[in-house]
Amino acid sequence: MNRQASIDVLFNPRSIAVIGASNTRGKLGNDVMRNLIDSGFEGRIYPVNPKAGEILGQKVFRSVTDIPRDVDVAVIVIPARFVLKTVEECGEKGVKALVIITAGFKESGHEGQEAEKKLVELAEKYEMIIQGPNCLGIINTSAPYNASFSAGTPVIGTIAFASQSGALMTGILDWSLMEKIGFSKFVSLGNKAHLDEADFIEAFGRDPDTSFILLYIESVIDGHKFMEACKKVIPHKPIFIVKSGVSVAGARAASSHTGSLAGSDTAYETAFKQSGVRRAHNMASLFDVASLIDDMQLPSGNRVAIITNAGGPGIMTTDACEAGGLELAQFTSQTGDYLKANLPPAASVANPIDALGTAQPDDYELCIEASLKDENVDAVLVLLTPQAMTKTTESAKVIVDVHKNYPDKPLLAVFMGGNSMVYPRIVLTTGGIPVFDFPERAVHALSELYKYTVSRDRLKDEEIPKFKADMKKVEKIFADVRRDDRRVLLGSEAHEIAEAYDIPVARIRLATNSEEAKSLSDELGYPIVLKIASPDIIHKSDIGGIMIGLKTPEEVETGFNQIIDSAKKHMPDAKVYGVDVQEMAEKGKELIIGCSRDVQFGPLIMFGTGGIFVNYLKDISFRLAPMTRTDASELIMETKMGTLLSGVRGEAPSDIAAIEDTILKISQLVTDFEEIVELDINPAFAYESGKGVSAVDVKITIG
Amino acid sequence: MNRQASIDVLFNPRSIAVIGASNTRGKLGNDVMRNLIDSGFEGRIYPVNPKAGEILGQKVFRSVTDIPRDVDVAVIVIPARFVLKTVEECGEKGVKALVIITAGFKESGHEGQEAEKKLVELAEKYEMIIQGPNCLGIINTSAPYNASFSAGTPVIGTIAFASQSGALMTGILDWSLMEKIGFSKFVSLGNKAHLDEADFIEAFGRDPDTSFILLYIESVIDGHKFMEACKKVIPHKPIFIVKSGVSVAGARAASSHTGSLAGSDTAYETAFKQSGVRRAHNMASLFDVASLIDDMQLPSGNRVAIITNAGGPGIMTTDACEAGGLELAQFTSQTGDYLKANLPPAASVANPIDALGTAQPDDYELCIEASLKDENVDAVLVLLTPQAMTKTTESAKVIVDVHKNYPDKPLLAVFMGGNSMVYPRIVLTTGGIPVFDFPERAVHALSELYKYTVSRDRLKDEEIPKFKADMKKVEKIFADVRRDDRRVLLGSEAHEIAEAYDIPVARIRLATNSEEAKSLSDELGYPIVLKIASPDIIHKSDIGGIMIGLKTPEEVETGFNQIIDSAKKHMPDAKVYGVDVQEMAEKGKELIIGCSRDVQFGPLIMFGTGGIFVNYLKDISFRLAPMTRTDASELIMETKMGTLLSGVRGEAPSDIAAIEDTILKISQLVTDFEEIVELDINPAFAYESGKGVSAVDVKITIG
Repeated sequence: MNRQASIDVLFNPRSIAVIGASNTRGKLGNDVMRNLIDSGFEGRIYPVNPKAGEILGQKVFRSVTDIPRDVDVAVIVIPARFVLKTVEECGEKGVKALVIITAGFKESGHEGQEAEKKLVELAEKYEMIIQGPNCLGIINTSAPYNASFSAGTPVIGTIAFASQSGALMTGILDWSLMEKIGFSKFVSLGNKAHLDEADFIEAFGRDPDTSFILLYIESVIDGHKFMEACKKVIPHKPIFIVKSGVSVAGARAASSHTGSLAGSDTAYETAFKQSGVRRAHNMASLFDVASLIDDMQLPSGNRVAIITNAGGPGIMTTDACEAGGLELAQFTSQTGDYLKANLPPAASVANPIDALGTAQPDDYELCIEASLKDENVDAVLVLLTPQAMTKTTESAKVIVDVHKNYPDKPLLAVFMGGNSMVYPRIVLTTGGIPVFDFPERAVHALSELYKYTVSRDRLKDEEIPKFKADMKKVEKIFADVRRDDRRVLLGSEAHEIAEAYDIPVARIRLATNSEEAKSLSDELGYPIVLKIASPDIIHKSDIGGIMIGLKTPEEVETGFNQIIDSAKKHMPDAKVYGVDVQEMAEKGKELIIGCSRDVQFGPLIMFGTGGIFVNYLKDISFRLAPMTRTDASELIMETKMGTLLSGVRGEAPSDIAAIEDTILKISQLVTDFEEIVELDINPAFAYESGKGVSAVDVKITIG
Repeated sequence: MNRQASIDVLFNPRSIAVIGASNTRGKLGNDVMRNLIDSGFEGRIYPVNPKAGEILGQKVFRSVTDIPRDVDVAVIVIPARFVLKTVEECGEKGVKALVIITAGFKESGHEGQEAEKKLVELAEKYEMIIQGPNCLGIINTSAPYNASFSAGTPVIGTIAFASQSGALMTGILDWSLMEKIGFSKFVSLGNKAHLDEADFIEAFGRDPDTSFILLYIESVIDGHKFMEACKKVIPHKPIFIVKSGVSVAGARAASSHTGSLAGSDTAYETAFKQSGVRRAHNMASLFDVASLIDDMQLPSGNRVAIITNAGGPGIMTTDACEAGGLELAQFTSQTGDYLKANLPPAASVANPIDALGTAQPDDYELCIEASLKDENVDAVLVLLTPQAMTKTTESAKVIVDVHKNYPDKPLLAVFMGGNSMVYPRIVLTTGGIPVFDFPERAVHALSELYKYTVSRDRLKDEEIPKFKADMKKVEKIFADVRRDDRRVLLGSEAHEIAEAYDIPVARIRLATNSEEAKSLSDELGYPIVLKIASPDIIHKSDIGGIMIGLKTPEEVETGFNQIIDSAKKHMPDAKVYGVDVQEMAEKGKELIIGCSRDVQFGPLIMFGTGGIFVNYLKDISFRLAPMTRTDASELIMETKMGTLLSGVRGEAPSDIAAIEDTILKISQLVTDFEEIVELDINPAFAYESGKGVSAVDVKITIG
C-alpha cells in the first residue's frame, strides 16, 4: 500500500460514507453529517445507520456494504465495540481511507490497546489507511470538505495544521475564525494508530494548497521516519512544531554522564534541529509567522532596514532584531547620499532611518524605495506612530505601491496604535503587506522565517562516513559480558571495543592481583594509572578508586592493594574484578564524548567539556546518530570547548579533525550495536593539531 | 525645594496656565487647551498668548504675570527661543511646576544644550520643578486632567506609565483605547532636564491611584538615585521597565577582562536585578501582567494548580509553568481523595486536574474550590476548551462565584477560542477574573507577578560591611603613578593597594635587574614567579612574559633575562620597568574578581571562573558596588564556579566566606576611590574552607 497515494484520496475523496450518521442534534454523527454538507463537499455522501431512513435529505444505508457505488473515505462515529466489525466491512468494500472518530482505544486501557492493534492489522490486510482513532476528523478547505465534528469550518488559507490534541484544535479553530486566519488542511491526529505525524508532514509537503506546516504533538511515533519526512519537506516549506510534554516525561534513571545530562526533551530538541524543524513554544505567535508566508518572499539574508517616524520605536526594533538574530543593514554609500539629499537635515539617514515625526507619505516612499533597492538590505521594516502630522492611510497606500515594484524583498509594516490604525491596517493587509501593532511581533515573525531559511540551507546531501571496524570482536565481548550476567562492561572490555573501532585509547589491561599488575605495568611502560575494575563502581575517583602517575613496580604494588582496600571499605557490596592497569596518557584538553539512547530517536551523542565536573559545567551539545562530518563539526563548535579547541589566547589549535573522527566512529559503533544503551568517554584528551586524541576512560553499558 | 511635594502639585493642580494657547486647530497650543477642557479638569485654566482674546471660551492673558491669581502648573508650548524668558516669568509669578512641551533643547545641538542648562538653573533659582522639555505633556486620569497634545485621554485605571519616547506613548495610548486598558498617570519624560525617571518612580510609588508602574526608558539620568527610588517603591508596587538601546550603545574600548565582559547593557541589567525591578522586552505582554494587579492578590508562592477539560492544553500549561519558574502544586491527600470521590473515574485527579471533555460547570466548581482550599496551592489556572458538551458561560459564572469565597488566592482563566468565548470572557472580566486566550499568556503574566514578589522579598535592609583599610597608602600610590604619567599600575603597586585593603595576595616586589631579582627571591622564598613589569603589556602570558616555579637563584637570573628579551622582541615599544618577583601561591580553584565603571551606575563588580580563558568560558556574574554580604553571596552562587566552590563530587568546600570578604573589600576599595576605572584579579586562588584565598595577579587602571 502506498500511504501517500491513499492520503491523496483522503484529502480529495469523490465519495464519503459517514458510518454512524444520525438525525439527532448533539450526536457526533449528526455534527459530522452537517459539517460535510455545509462545507460544500461536491462528492457523494453516504450516511450509514442500521435504522436506515433519511438524514439531512440524504438516503441512509444500513451498512457500508449496502452502498451501491465505490466509497473512497469512511468516517466512523459509532460506539467502540462495533468499530472492528465495521472496519472489516469497509475493507471488504474496498474503502481507501478511514477516519475513526470513535474513542475508547489505546487511551482507555488494555482492552482498547488490543482493539487498536487489531485495527492496524485490518488496515494492513485490506490496504487501507486509518486516521485516528479517538480524533476530531479532517478538514480540507480546498476540496472543500469537513469530515469532523468541529464547530464550524476554518477560513480557506495555506496553513496545514495537524494536532495530537483535539481540544486544542477546537480552540484554535474557534480563535482562527475570529482572527480570520485561514487553513488549507486541518487534521486531528488522534491516537495515531496507523497514520502518524510523519505521514501527514510528507502529504502536506506535496500539497499544492499548503505553504506553511504547523503541528502540535506530544510525542512522535517513529523518530527516524519523522526526521526523514521533515528533511524531505523542509527544502520546500517551513515546518513549525509545538511539542509539549517537556516537563512531564520526568527524570529517568541514568548511570552515565550522558544519560543524566540528556534531559527527557533533548532528543526532540536535537531531532528538530537536525531535520530543520523550527520549534515554537507559543501558539499565537506562530500565526504571525504563518501570516508572512503568503504575502512575501523569504528573506535571502538577515540584514534589515528599519524606517521610522520616531526614535524610541526605532531603538526598540533594533534591540528586537539583535535579540532575534537579525542584523541592521549597512546601507551602500549611494543609499546614504540619496537619503541625505532628500530627507530633512535633522533626519537620521543611518539605519534605523528616522524620517522624523513630520514624515509625510512621500518621505516614507523614498526611504522604502531606497532601502528595497539597496543590495545590502534583505528585508525592510516600516514603523509608523500616530503623530500630529502623520497621514496614516496615505502612508499605508504608499507602502503597498512601492512594494509592487520590488516584490522580491520582504516588507513588513508596524503601525503602532489602536482605533486610528484600523483602516490603514486593512489597506496594508489587502495590499499584501503584513502589518503588526508592536515591533517585537514583526521582528519575531521575520526572524523565525529567516531562521527557517538557515535551517533549510543547512540540510545538505552528505554521506555518513564509514570507518573500518572489527564488529566480530565487539560481538564477542558483548557475548562474554552477557555470559557473565553483567550489563556494565569492565574498563578493559570497553577499551577493547573502542580499539575495535579504531578509536584512539590509552591501552588498558585487567590485573587480578598485584603481581599481575606489576608485570602488566612493565609491559605498558611507566608511569602507570590504576583504576578499580568493578561494574558496580561508576564514579571511581569519588571512592579513591583511581591512582595516577605510578612510576615503579613498587608503587604499582602498593597502589593495587590500596585501591582494593578502599573499594572494600567504601562499597563492600560491589563486585570487584581486580584493577585496570592503564598506560598514562599525556594530559590534553579534557573532553567528554558520550551516547545515550532515546526511545523514539535512538542514539543521542553528546560532546563537551570533560572531567569530573561535567554535570556542573554543562558545556555540552547533542546530535542524533548516524551523523555526517558537518554534524560532528557543528556539534563540537556549539560548545565553549569548541572555541578553546580552535586555538585562542595564542594556543595552538587542537586536532579537531581527530575529534570529529572519534565522534563519527562512536556514532557508527552505537548505530551498529543497538544493545549499547550508554557510552561515556570521559575524559578524552585532545592534543595539538596532528597529534590526535586519546580516550582515557571508556564506559559502556549494554541493554 | 521638595521635589516630591511639588510633584504632588503637578499631579493635582488647582490652576493651570497654558502658555502658547492657540485658537488655531492643528497647533499644539490648541491641542493642549482642548485636551485640558475635554478631560474635565475642574480647576482654573488660564490660556496665555500675547494676542489676548478668548480661546475655547476662556479669557486669554497676555503673559503669565498678568494672571490675577496663583498658578500651580504652567504648560509651555511656545517656540524654543521664547522659553527661557517665559520660565523666568513663571518663576517670578511663583508657579510650582512647569511642563515644557517645546522642543529644540539638548536634542538639537550645542545651543539647545546651553539653553537646557539655563532652564535647570532657573528651576533651582525659583524652586520650581520642570517636566521635559521636548515632551508630550502629562495626564492624570484621576484628577482628572490632560495637559498634553495627545490624541485622546486614556481610560481611567491603575497603571502609571512614564515614557522617554513621546511617539511610543502616543502609540500605546491609541492602542490602549482600543484594548480598554486603563491608566492612572501618563507622563512623557522628554529630555529629563530636571525631573527624571527616579522622581516619577517615587511619586508613582506614593500615588494611591497607582498599583502598577511601567516605564519605557533609553537611559537613566542618575543611577544611584534611580536605584534608591526603585528600592523605596518595590516593597509596595511592582515596577516593570522596558529599557531599549541594548544594541545601540555599541562597544567601548576596554583593556581589562571585566571591562570587555561587561557589555554596554550589563550595568542596567544588574541595577534592575539589585533594586527589584522586573525588566521586560515586550510591551504588549506587560499589559497582561498589569491586568492582574487590580483583580487579584499577589501569589504567596509559585505552586500552581491547573484545572482543564482537555489533556493537550493541560500539558502545554505545565510546560509553560516550568519555563516560567512556576511549579505544579502537589495536592494534599485530602484534596486528592475528594477529587477522586467526586470526579468521573476516567478523570485525572493529579495536577493538572483533567475533568474531561464532558466537564460541566459543577465539575469546574468542585475542582476550583478544592484547589483554592488546598494549602499546597498558591494560584489556580482554569483552562476551558470549547467541546461539544461545554457550557462556556455557565462555567465562567461558576469561576466568578467560587472566587468570591476565596479572594486571597490568584485565580486565572484561559478560555481558548474566539467568537464562542466573547461572552464568557466578559462574564469573567466583569467578575474580576483575568482571562486569556492562550495558556502561555496567562502563565507569563502570573510568572512575572510571582517573580516580582521574589525580587521584592529579596530587598532587605542590610548594612554595607566596612573593613579596615589604609586609604592613605592607596592615595600615595596613585599620586606616584600620576607623577609617573601613567594610568596602568605596575603589578607591585596594584598588589600593595590590595594589601592596604587587607585583600590576601601573593606578595610581589619589583626587580629592575637580575641581581635584585635574585635577592628579592631569597627574601620571598622559593619557588618564585617572574612577570614582566610593564603597564603596556596587558596579557603577559601571550608574549612569554611570565615564568613560574623557579626554584633557584640561577633559574631566577636566567628567567629575568629571558623575560626582558622576550618583551623586547614581541613588544619593542612597551615601556618596561623591570620584572615583578612574586611568591608562588599554592594552586587552588581559579577565580576572577574584577571591576569596571559604568557611566550611570558606577563600579560594576564581576565574579566568576578565572584563568586565561575567562573570555571564552564566560562563567561570570555582576553586582553594582557598594554591596551587602547577601549581594556578594548571591553573586558567587549565580556562577557555575559557585557550585564548584560549595564542594561537589566529594571535594571539600572552598572558603566561600573568604571569597565574599575579598569581593566586599574590592567593593569598598572601588567605592572609596572613584579614580579606579578598571580592576582585575585574575586569577585569585580559592582554597579549602578555612584556608582563604590568594590574589595572584592584580591589575589596576586609574582614570
